[in-house]
Formats: sequence, structure tokens, C-alpha cells
Amino acid sequence: MPDTAAEITNTASLVVDLADRSYPIYIGVDLLKQPELLARHIPGDTAVVVSNTTVAPLYADALINGLSEFKKVEQIVLPDGEQYKSLEVLSTIFDALVDARCDRQTTLIALGGGVIGDITGFAAASYQRGVPFIQIPTTLLSQVDSSVGGKTGVNHPRAKNMIGAFYQPRCVIADIRTLDTLPDRELSAGLAEIIKYGLLWDVDFLDWIETNIARLRARDEAALKHAITRSCAIKADIVNQDEREGGLRALLNLGHTFGHAIEAGMGYGNWLHGEAVGAGMCMAADLSHRLEWISAADLARVYRIVAAAGLPTQSPSELSIETIRSLMDSDKKVQSGRLRLVLMHGLGSALVTDKAPEETLMQTLQNTHASAF
Amino acid sequence: MPDTAAEITNTASLVVDLADRSYPIYIGVDLLKQPELLARHIPGDTAVVVSNTTVAPLYADALINGLSEFKKVEQIVLPDGEQYKSLEVLSTIFDALVDARCDRQTTLIALGGGVIGDITGFAAASYQRGVPFIQIPTTLLSQVDSSVGGKTGVNHPRAKNMIGAFYQPRCVIADIRTLDTLPDRELSAGLAEIIKYGLLWDVDFLDWIETNIARLRARDEAALKHAITRSCAIKADIVNQDEREGGLRALLNLGHTFGHAIEAGMGYGNWLHGEAVGAGMCMAADLSHRLEWISAADLARVYRIVAAAGLPTQSPSELSIETIRSLMDSDKKVQSGRLRLVLMHGLGSALVTDKAPEETLMQTLQNTHASAF
Repeated sequence: MPDTAAEITNTASLVVDLADRSYPIYIGVDLLKQPELLARHIPGDTAVVVSNTTVAPLYADALINGLSEFKKVEQIVLPDGEQYKSLEVLSTIFDALVDARCDRQTTLIALGGGVIGDITGFAAASYQRGVPFIQIPTTLLSQVDSSVGGKTGVNHPRAKNMIGAFYQPRCVIADIRTLDTLPDRELSAGLAEIIKYGLLWDVDFLDWIETNIARLRARDEAALKHAITRSCAIKADIVNQDEREGGLRALLNLGHTFGHAIEAGMGYGNWLHGEAVGAGMCMAADLSHRLEWISAADLARVYRIVAAAGLPTQSPSELSIETIRSLMDSDKKVQSGRLRLVLMHGLGSALVTDKAPEETLMQTLQNTHASAF
Repeated sequence: MPDTAAEITNTASLVVDLADRSYPIYIGVDLLKQPELLARHIPGDTAVVVSNTTVAPLYADALINGLSEFKKVEQIVLPDGEQYKSLEVLSTIFDALVDARCDRQTTLIALGGGVIGDITGFAAASYQRGVPFIQIPTTLLSQVDSSVGGKTGVNHPRAKNMIGAFYQPRCVIADIRTLDTLPDRELSAGLAEIIKYGLLWDVDFLDWIETNIARLRARDEAALKHAITRSCAIKADIVNQDEREGGLRALLNLGHTFGHAIEAGMGYGNWLHGEAVGAGMCMAADLSHRLEWISAADLARVYRIVAAAGLPTQSPSELSIETIRSLMDSDKKVQSGRLRLVLMHGLGSALVTDKAPEETLMQTLQNTHASAF
């Protein structure tokens, strides 16, 4: 039996407030050992856990065993990697759902990182025009980013996240214990998005991150819980005000227009999303400094924090500057052919602009390219 | 320049009232010769007309020439047929949109029948998580059915309309002149849905259809305009009350659970959707009569009207009764494994029920099979 709304709100770490599509986010240690947390958000008697070949062996069995009260709990295991966030793989999810005769009351549960969350969310949005959906993010990046805000979708071979839907989950369960098995490189990728929240919204949080970056990299549970909760709260705050990316929400793409070009150019899966965002934030900081919107000291500080998180600060030598520039034009923020970038106006404060002159942008691309160092 | 809302409402035949997603439907003769009707609903400076190899040569050039004030108007021409309403063909639309660097302000215009409307609508719902969308239905069936109500999507190889979204157009333009080029068989398929509205909602309209069926088949413009307007008004009335198919909207599926099984079993494109619905309505009437919900005279009347429209009244001999029964279980109305059917309780009044005993259903499947005649 589901608890009352009040009880759920009491146990949730925060609530994303979107009227009749509001949902709770639970953040804590060993939450996957409390199956009732998940069960009370499954409305029907059938669920399908969608996971990948890396995460399924670690957590899927225990999760499914915890749902023994339900009539049918199926499992779909996808290959692991950003290159599989495609229409083709989405199609295999639909095949499995049709094969299992899943109906409109079937809840899809995404168990994995951002790729699993995004593709499963889009499958849930589209299967029979919408079935219930729950997110269990198991990477730091997906816990702080892709599980909040309802963006779902898949990549086009030439442009990231080009195809998708806005679709809200019934709940998000972020178990910090799942980060124990996360490779260091993926932990750093998650820190990129955490740094991003500080840079675009909250300079006090940026100070905290700078002070605690070693604790975070050492996976200190209290530090991680604070960083995840504060990041989700900032994102929820922004999404509450702008669910459909009319304006404010675009700020969340700080570093992403640069980063998406790097990811697409290198081929999805070669650079992690967070790594590309790390370099992308340095590129956005460089351009912000050239426009005299942040100081030289602030620029140096951005580089220092990104590097301290174990992330790249330059675009890769494998890509030419011209390729990066061209790929930036595929960004979803392009409007009527005009490139719009998220830049900083002082640390902790971001804005969307189409005012950066093309030659200044090209100077940034040259100065932040690996060949410049 | 867009007209004021009041002016649009004045010229529209009816308005589908869905708060901030309300939209006008224009129904009339030679509306495609008034490009300003279309132009005022395109918010940006870029549009893409999606059509097929049958419709594009007839209407696309004139339509695009009428939009010369816009910066860029592209064209996508798909193969013609229900079998192309697939994820694979959807993927080629996305390819073309990315190739043309279409951004979030690009309006997709569906020019064609239900297949074009459904797949283009889903492309519009999903491309960059949603771009503006306009419907120009050119078949009788799409004018009375698929262009109203916001259902978009593609078929799964084993189940119709399994993947999609609810997504409302900016406007619908139904030009009766486009029916001049429609094959007789497709005109009859459209009449199936018109008959459906009479059977499920409005017995007076059913009387009118029965009286005017010959005029409709002869493409009398005044008769067609009345039939289309009344059908759209009934559908809009139902959708206004139940956008997301909580209950009432399911009534629109009268004859469709039987019909979808026939379509899927025969392979999409072999029976037209309207033909399958024609037989499906006879099957629903047969079962309603067995349950003593409609009289023998009413049952005979349903058969007579469906036949007078030039539609099949029986399921095809190529499919076994067992195959039809099995395919019915893939229907989206199945809930927790239980088949739910839309049946009639008196002509002009439909209801959703899971009360039909399995053996009575099997009697209907046997009695309405071509082998029984």
C-alpha cells in the first residue's frame, strides 16, 4: 500500500514540485535495502527493470527479489555505454515490452547511469504513449543530473539528446552505496556536474566543493550526500521555475554546448559526458573572461577546481578546432541559426547569450585546444 | 502576422478546447488555396512539410510556394503505406531534420493521411523534445479521426500504435477539395470512422449518415462538410473531457480492438484501417447483441450501414479465429491481462466492458468470420 503523500514527503530528501507531476527524491546510504521505498511508487502489479551488463549483475537480483509481492517483474539488460543510447537500442526495449505483453499499467524502472535513465525514460514516455516510470540512478552523474528534471531521450548519430520527451518519474532513489562500485573516472565525471551547479547558481556551494574535493574523491559518504542533495536541490529549484526550458533551465547547460561538440566529435562513449563538460566549463570560463565577465583569478580558479576533480581542462587534440566549431551548430540551443551559449557573469551566476563575437569564440577554441598547451 | 485569437476562432470550424494547448480546426473547400491560414500558425521562420510519394506530387509544391515569406521550407517525402508507420521510417525523418539543421523553432507540417499525421506528429513531439506541429489531413479518415485529439505514434511490428505521444497540433486544416483525388476504397475507409461516431455517441447523426450515404460516396461537398464537421465535433467533445484516455476517450475505439487484430494479422497495409474498423464494428455489434444490449433489428442495421459504405462486414478468411483472438490480447486497452472491449448499449451509446464471457466472444469471432457465410 502506498503511504500518504505526507509520509512520502517526510522521508524524501526533497520534492520536485510540478503540480500533479510532483515527485520525491530519496538520497541516502543503503536505500536499495529498503524495497518498500520502491514498491510504494509502483501503481500496478507489473514492473520491468531496465539495466545494463555492468549494473545488472551488481544490483538487479536484489532489487527484483525485493519486489516479490508483485505479479510480474521482468528484466531488460542493455549493453553498457553512451553509444547504445540510440533509437536502435530503444527499439529493442519496445520489442521486449511487447514480447512480455506489458500493458499501460506496467512500471519501467531505470537501474543504472544516465544512459539507462534517459533511454528508459523515453521508452516509458512513448510505450503505449506513456507508462509509469521510476529512476534508480547508480552513478554520481546521474544522481545529480539526469534523474532530476524529466528530460529523457536518445542520441542522434550526429547530435546528442536530439530525440526525446519531457517525462517525469514517479520517484527517484539515489543510493550512495551504489557509488562504491563506480570507477574513479566516472566519479570524476559526476563531480563535473556538481561543480557546474556551483559555477552557475551558488558560489557558496562552489567554495564548499573546492574545500571538500578530496573528501568527495575519497567517497566520503557525508560529503557525497551533501553534494548530491545540494545539486539536486539546485536543479529542482531551476526546473520548478521552468519545466520546459523556456529560459532559466537553459543555464543548466553551462559547458554543455562545448562539451556536446567534443562528445559527438570523439564518438559517443570515448569521452565521458562529465569529462566533456569539465573541458566545456573551462572553455565557457575562457570565453567569459575574454568578454570581461569574469576575472583572470576566477578563470584560473575554474581551471584549478576542474583539474582537482580529475577532469580534462582542454578540448582533445584528435578534433580540429573547425570540427568543434561546426558541431556546436548542431546544439539544441541554436535558434533561427544563431548560436546561443551559457556563459558566466561572475562565478555563481550564469546567463544565456548570443552576444559572443565569432572571432572571440574562435580565440577561445584555439586557446583551450590541447594543441595550445 | 498572426491574427488575434478571436479572429482565428471566428474563421475556424471548431476549436478543440485544451487550455493552453487549444487549437482550431478549419474545414472547407479550397482551404489550401489560402496559404495565410497556414502561415499564421507557423511561429518561427522555418518549416518542414512531411508528405508521401502519393500526396506530395498533388499538393506539396503549391503549399510550399504559398510559404515564400518564410526563410526556409524543406520537404520530406516518405513512402506511402501503413507498413511505413515504423520506428525505422521515423528515424529517417530525424536524419533529414538533423541534416537540414532544423532547430527548436522549426514547424513540422503533416500533409497526407493518418500515417503521415501520426508519424509526423510523433517526430514533432520527439525532435529536440518537441517542435511546433500542424496537421493538413488529405484523406477522409484522417480528417475525421487522426487529426483531432493529439494521438501520435508509430506501429510496432506486432501491435498497432504501440509507440507514441500525446501531442497537440497548432491547427488542423481539412480541405475537402483534397478528397477529389482519393481512391473510392479510401473514401469508404473514412466513412467507417464517421459511422463509428454515430454508433457510439449520436443516433441522430447515424440516421443522417444512413440517409446520406450515397451522397457521401458521390463526394457531395455539402454532405462531406457536414459529416466531417459533426465527426470532428464529437471527437473534440470527447477529447475535451478526457485528453489522456482516462475513460470516456476509450469509447472512440469502438470496433478497434477487433479491427487492430485484423490489421496486424493481415500485415499492415493489406486491409485499410477503416476497412478493419468496418468489420470490427460489425463484430462489436454481434457481441453486443449476444449480450442482449442491442436488438436483432439494430444488429441488422449496423451490418446494412457498414455494407452501404462499401466496407467489409466480416473478418478475413486468411486469418484463423484463434489468431484474431490472440492478437486482441496485444491491444492497449488490456489492463492487468484482462481484455476490455468497447461495445454498444443501444445504438448511439457505447461503453467499455470486461464483462463479455470468453465463450460469447468466441461465438462472435466464429459468427463474423468469412468462413461462416
